[in-house]
Amino acid sequence: MRAAVMRKGEIVTDQLPDLEPGDGQVLVRTLACGICGSDLHALQHASKMKGVAEEAGLPPLFDPDRDVVMGHEFCAEIVDFGPNTLRNLKVGDRVCSMPMLFHAGGVAGVGYSNDYPGGYGEQMLLSEPMLLRVSDDLPTEAAALTEPMAVGIHAVARSEPRKTEAPLVVGCGPVGLAVIAALSLRGIEPIVAADYSPKRRALAKHMGAHVVVDPAEQTALECFAKEAGGKLPLIFECVGVAGMLEGLMREAPAQSRILVAGVCMEDDRIKPLVAIYKEIQLQFVLGYTPEEFASALTALTEGRIDGGPLITGHVGIDGVAAAFETLGQPETHAKVLVEPWREG
Amino acid sequence: MRAAVMRKGEIVTDQLPDLEPGDGQVLVRTLACGICGSDLHALQHASKMKGVAEEAGLPPLFDPDRDVVMGHEFCAEIVDFGPNTLRNLKVGDRVCSMPMLFHAGGVAGVGYSNDYPGGYGEQMLLSEPMLLRVSDDLPTEAAALTEPMAVGIHAVARSEPRKTEAPLVVGCGPVGLAVIAALSLRGIEPIVAADYSPKRRALAKHMGAHVVVDPAEQTALECFAKEAGGKLPLIFECVGVAGMLEGLMREAPAQSRILVAGVCMEDDRIKPLVAIYKEIQLQFVLGYTPEEFASALTALTEGRIDGGPLITGHVGIDGVAAAFETLGQPETHAKVLVEPWREG
Repeated sequence: MRAAVMRKGEIVTDQLPDLEPGDGQVLVRTLACGICGSDLHALQHASKMKGVAEEAGLPPLFDPDRDVVMGHEFCAEIVDFGPNTLRNLKVGDRVCSMPMLFHAGGVAGVGYSNDYPGGYGEQMLLSEPMLLRVSDDLPTEAAALTEPMAVGIHAVARSEPRKTEAPLVVGCGPVGLAVIAALSLRGIEPIVAADYSPKRRALAKHMGAHVVVDPAEQTALECFAKEAGGKLPLIFECVGVAGMLEGLMREAPAQSRILVAGVCMEDDRIKPLVAIYKEIQLQFVLGYTPEEFASALTALTEGRIDGGPLITGHVGIDGVAAAFETLGQPETHAKVLVEPWREG
Repeated sequence: MRAAVMRKGEIVTDQLPDLEPGDGQVLVRTLACGICGSDLHALQHASKMKGVAEEAGLPPLFDPDRDVVMGHEFCAEIVDFGPNTLRNLKVGDRVCSMPMLFHAGGVAGVGYSNDYPGGYGEQMLLSEPMLLRVSDDLPTEAAALTEPMAVGIHAVARSEPRKTEAPLVVGCGPVGLAVIAALSLRGIEPIVAADYSPKRRALAKHMGAHVVVDPAEQTALECFAKEAGGKLPLIFECVGVAGMLEGLMREAPAQSRILVAGVCMEDDRIKPLVAIYKEIQLQFVLGYTPEEFASALTALTEGRIDGGPLITGHVGIDGVAAAFETLGQPETHAKVLVEPWREG
């Protein structure tokens, strides 16, 4: 099969061996797979991610010196079933899955594994018990947003929003937009969202933000103070750049809570004394539960999340490398889908 | 009156004008006042504290270029009442008070004010509505522990302990010991506590720790893992030194929560990626509510907290400067009381 392969810090197109489903596994054909900011990070910082995982006593995701086919935000079509499968779904059904594959040796992260390719290739192996059937009414593109929307649903669930608080979403890239969608699902208002990019502010409004602010004109927290009717900010940090936390803690009022959903790869510096004076809470979040993942698909299916406008580009396997380069431009792109069947 | 005055980064004994109670104020004679670690910080870092307060948009506590009589952990005796007081208590009654004084210009922090002296002087002004009468059964020394114990009660209340968690107290100085006392009040177990000092570990046991660990032999989290029966750690960081948070986040299991009760005056460095991988929560805490302050006095009065062994030294006004120097020695001292009526 053909795939866009991460190899020695670059994305290259290559021909890989076809896949063979093992016990409890299903062979699928990738229909669409979103490019995630984490993949951009992984390409730039693969060694660092490995080092941090080791330092934290966590299993390493993958060996950066070996090939990886990334891609963990996918919708796919069932092609074949391996041994010991129940086959409640059938060949040709479209499915989503949490990007976790169970195999004889344990569990692999689909899209972050040296052994199990993700959605930037034509084929994947998935675990049958993890499959969620995509309703015929839901376009493939929308189904491919299940994973990023689950990230937003999880961040909001983890924040346990209080009636005394209103949300402030800082950064309206895909993570921030998913957080806005998840807040909107819960009927929380007002939702205040900040981004320097007019396009992303427009997307924030589309996903359910009631007020958007350009931090070049006033800070997110100044805007929030005017709009939130005296409620405390429940801040979702969705930028993930060193210095963001310190800046937010400096500007936030006492008793503010900050959900850290943006992934900062660098070491960061904070001023504990400021955080202590204000009794700030920082909650770092990652991923989602199976229930949250399924609820993202349900919300997309029922039209309670309309993610269509987030999809700003489509590429084939040969276009992945260039897409990685252009995704840094917020005025052009939010979410780019890789469609391995597509030319170019 | 005589007082130990913080002047240009030093503690000096001086004669100050006698105090005159204003509207709603009461003149008291200081009986005993604990030396708090924050006072040691203030002496060393007064300018930095001012800078941080400014940066955080908070009112400065005091002008480090002018005199301050510190001391905010006190028990005192009523000497006289100002105008517009209710006088439900009487002259000679012993009282505690949150260290806040209301005056025509607003509110001052008793012990952190250029205008209103704290307990390292013979006299103080207190706000009548803030006074709590000390029961005749409670020794003055124990009553002077009300404020530090309230800090522990607040930290534990703010942590909202869960049944799936057990506490790990890192650092058994006065803050850590107060946290242990507050955990013990709630009947939480096991309480695991870590400190390099044998004396402080013994005090930790006295205050209610079930297991104590010397981090020179095994890390606090290694010990916790053995003792906590699979519960998640609810970590109370009571050291307040740069690097503690990063170290705890690196060693803690996923989903750990860290209550930051130790006051780190320096900028600190964290690895957000580690915190994200583990979904760590950091809750910074400070101070207490009036209810928590009153409950600390009640617990001391009813003997549910026995703080006696914490008190390791007594000095008069002239001994304050030397006490500040020796308090860095954990094998000698936990809490030193200033008794302004005492010689030396």
